[in-house]
Amino acid sequence: MNRRLINVVTTWAFTIGISWSLIFPPNVSAYEDALVRETVSLGPSREPVLDHPKQAAEAQKKLNALSSKKGRRPNIVVVLMDDIGWGDIGVYGGGIAVGAPTPNIDRLARSGLRLTSTYSQPSCSPTRATLLTGRLPRRHGLLRPPMAGEKGGLEGEITMAELLRESNYVTQAVGKWHLGENEASQPQNVGFDDFYGFLGVANMYTEWRDPAFQPDIVNKPERQEWMRNVAFNRFLVHGERGKKLKQVREIDLEVFKQLDEEWAEYSSKFIHRMKNSDEPFFLYHATTGAHFDNYPPDKFKGMSPAGYPYKDVVVQLDDIVGRLVKALEETGQLENTLIFVTSDNGPEMETWWDSGYTPFRGAKGSTYEGGVRVPGIAYWKGMIAPGRESDGLFDMADIFATSLSLAGVPEKVPSDRFIDSIDQTSFLLSDSGESNRKFLYYWLADTFSAVRVGEYKFMTAGIDNGVPNDSWNAGGFTGVEQKYKYGKVFNLYLDPKETHNFLLRKLPYISIWQNAIFAHMETFKRYPPKVVVRPPGATDD
Amino acid sequence: MNRRLINVVTTWAFTIGISWSLIFPPNVSAYEDALVRETVSLGPSREPVLDHPKQAAEAQKKLNALSSKKGRRPNIVVVLMDDIGWGDIGVYGGGIAVGAPTPNIDRLARSGLRLTSTYSQPSCSPTRATLLTGRLPRRHGLLRPPMAGEKGGLEGEITMAELLRESNYVTQAVGKWHLGENEASQPQNVGFDDFYGFLGVANMYTEWRDPAFQPDIVNKPERQEWMRNVAFNRFLVHGERGKKLKQVREIDLEVFKQLDEEWAEYSSKFIHRMKNSDEPFFLYHATTGAHFDNYPPDKFKGMSPAGYPYKDVVVQLDDIVGRLVKALEETGQLENTLIFVTSDNGPEMETWWDSGYTPFRGAKGSTYEGGVRVPGIAYWKGMIAPGRESDGLFDMADIFATSLSLAGVPEKVPSDRFIDSIDQTSFLLSDSGESNRKFLYYWLADTFSAVRVGEYKFMTAGIDNGVPNDSWNAGGFTGVEQKYKYGKVFNLYLDPKETHNFLLRKLPYISIWQNAIFAHMETFKRYPPKVVVRPPGATDD
Repeated sequence: MNRRLINVVTTWAFTIGISWSLIFPPNVSAYEDALVRETVSLGPSREPVLDHPKQAAEAQKKLNALSSKKGRRPNIVVVLMDDIGWGDIGVYGGGIAVGAPTPNIDRLARSGLRLTSTYSQPSCSPTRATLLTGRLPRRHGLLRPPMAGEKGGLEGEITMAELLRESNYVTQAVGKWHLGENEASQPQNVGFDDFYGFLGVANMYTEWRDPAFQPDIVNKPERQEWMRNVAFNRFLVHGERGKKLKQVREIDLEVFKQLDEEWAEYSSKFIHRMKNSDEPFFLYHATTGAHFDNYPPDKFKGMSPAGYPYKDVVVQLDDIVGRLVKALEETGQLENTLIFVTSDNGPEMETWWDSGYTPFRGAKGSTYEGGVRVPGIAYWKGMIAPGRESDGLFDMADIFATSLSLAGVPEKVPSDRFIDSIDQTSFLLSDSGESNRKFLYYWLADTFSAVRVGEYKFMTAGIDNGVPNDSWNAGGFTGVEQKYKYGKVFNLYLDPKETHNFLLRKLPYISIWQNAIFAHMETFKRYPPKVVVRPPGATDD
Repeated sequence: MNRRLINVVTTWAFTIGISWSLIFPPNVSAYEDALVRETVSLGPSREPVLDHPKQAAEAQKKLNALSSKKGRRPNIVVVLMDDIGWGDIGVYGGGIAVGAPTPNIDRLARSGLRLTSTYSQPSCSPTRATLLTGRLPRRHGLLRPPMAGEKGGLEGEITMAELLRESNYVTQAVGKWHLGENEASQPQNVGFDDFYGFLGVANMYTEWRDPAFQPDIVNKPERQEWMRNVAFNRFLVHGERGKKLKQVREIDLEVFKQLDEEWAEYSSKFIHRMKNSDEPFFLYHATTGAHFDNYPPDKFKGMSPAGYPYKDVVVQLDDIVGRLVKALEETGQLENTLIFVTSDNGPEMETWWDSGYTPFRGAKGSTYEGGVRVPGIAYWKGMIAPGRESDGLFDMADIFATSLSLAGVPEKVPSDRFIDSIDQTSFLLSDSGESNRKFLYYWLADTFSAVRVGEYKFMTAGIDNGVPNDSWNAGGFTGVEQKYKYGKVFNLYLDPKETHNFLLRKLPYISIWQNAIFAHMETFKRYPPKVVVRPPGATDD
């Protein structure tokens, strides 16, 4: 467990007499009062921003210095884990406390910026599409994950991979796709030079093969046969830009077990190959773990203190993050690479115990914090000061515009459609950076759900899930959509679990929330989405 | 916000090219499988222990080296905060995420040992008495906090202060006492050389004076008059060993506001005075914050991002911890002092919003984790390796025997009564120390509630509180005691919120829990407590 290293460092530090406060610098808790600051418009097709000229200048200065030194634009690595809860990670209060230590991710967080308010969408595919397009699901149209054999994808959308590729980035996707199996939506056709992974989602490959979970399929030959005929891609595949997707091998449980290892290897090799590249790269590494079902490879089996598959896979994923960072360090690219580690949604609780942990209310599928508030860690050696922490709002959509900005092509953000993404470069890079985002909008598929400003969340609809046995409305991904006719208000600092409706005591603020929702709804009038907007309160389609 | 320091450290580290993995060493996640290891008996009056000869030898070696170097036994500082939840502290997933950064406590944790399974009793006075006597409430008799004017105390008990004093420690108590106002229970009569603080609890001094919370007292002269006649000590007091307690001044809201500041100053001065002392010291510093009601002093008012009194006081308490550490550092005593920072119980939720946060189920008053699992941070420069973390069990009772062991007088642990405390010296000091405790027993006043072994908790009675509006059984400290006729089982790794009863799937382990409870109950037969034991299932007294 690296105990030797601990001893070395300890002895070293104490021997040369460095004060503890110098070795472990205090965290910067960036907090401006975003609640009462006005935003600045960037035009009709962009989400307005909180303007921070000083931090923007500081960030630009850093970027210029790096550019002079490296003579190349920075690389971008996004590690997207599956169904990992906010509470699963050590620096978020999980780790050893929940039976699965995450020392590599924790170290990354402590050596960079730990964001405590990073938001995904309530489920998988919507988040992935939002990350890659910079647009909310209500706009890109992927309102929920496509199931086995179902159409659904990115047609008509513009991905950051495409825009980065046009700007001479090498673009690599590895791992889970789940953004449509149809040809037009496949990764090598929407901007990635190369893709190695599968097109669907873990359970599509596993659950009809596992006798423990699906005896009524596995032990009945007719159902096995029927399942065999459901049309979906059962293969580990390899895609190259402009070419037809190649099937590498069919994914059975044995193949599945090795996927995350094989993908980590693939990404590591890619990183090593890019060592001497003249062009920068964008690596989108999406793990299949720890989405149910989990089958840890032998070397991780029983390696978590909890000893359950989900937990062993958390340990594995943490190890994989460590390996990717190591590959970047070994190839001398760490100083030229922004690494962002996150998850696609809150923990999924219907398949408990093969599931994760959030301290918050709700789970995957809900817009209570448990469903959408995820770990968010930004690390960049020499560019992001170690030990930073911030509760500033960060929507995963923000990765889109931030990446284009880092690539030096902010003008490539499309203007023919509404872009929800905000450029967070200065938030990430300035030593005391504040979020450039004032409003965080929550959607339950096509139902508007809530807006967060500062520590306050005003909620007009929600799904209360994640807790078993309490009511018929509980138990995992699904749940009854509830409309809150007058709205509910939660103070997320005083009440992180969202149990005390604070509406009537917080009426002084109500215009802030109402105006934010009106402004948000206006964007759907200006740029009509693919399907009709259902504003809060309306019941028809 | 110490941004300058961050920059200095960052620049320094990057300039001299230290690898990030060396600056921020990985955590050691100590975990042996305590569930299946057998304990060793220390005799009929002691809780059995998990034996770790190797780590004990390592700890002893460290202590010998320190003793040679310093020529004196180590100091012990316990900082006991009031009603602070597990989730309030940054390194436990709180801090900036809940609107009150705790950089000083976080730094202490990162530079020492962060315990994720430190347990208090479900409420204030029982915890304090357990800490000081090494015995569970069922034995020392303080089953709940004494209210204004009520008798209740430590008669017949032996405190660690007394035993350390007999061993030539200077013993100082500062702050909240709440272990009985009667003379025999006063701190200067139960082992402390000096005491500066109050005898009761925050709300006794505040709530009948605050028109916002108690209009029906403050605005009605007859009730004010009546309240004036309730017999309890309303004063900030000073006690010296062998002398009558002196009244310093009456505590009104203005005085109250300054108490924690004044106490921090008193403790700092004590630490400075001890700089050249020939004898080691035990400092028991118990804050009044953040127990309701909170009135932050002006310099902390509005200083938390949340801007609420509780949160401002959390920021203040964090600052106070920083000041005490600084006093030890400035006087060159940091290397010779074990610092333990913790809280007396989980957050109290009936007075929300003037209250804290736990991610767990339940709140103060409950034996669900939310009521009893508290922050536990052990720091000792040069003796406890930085960056350590452990989920090993630590009962606050363990401070008793551990302190006597550190003082070189382990034989002073009384043998005429049952002592629940376990010597955790080797757990704290060995670089890969494991807890010496196998079983954690939970009691709801005089009702046995649960036992935890490893990650499993077997529960026979509980109180479900902390969530408003859900049922009559909710809403804070009080709650209906529920008996679980067949027991409930929770896996705290897979289910930290204790929502999935796992009994029938975990029957293989049942003998472990049952035998643990039988053995525990036997101790009450061998050493009958002051009041009759009510074993699980019995309904009479």
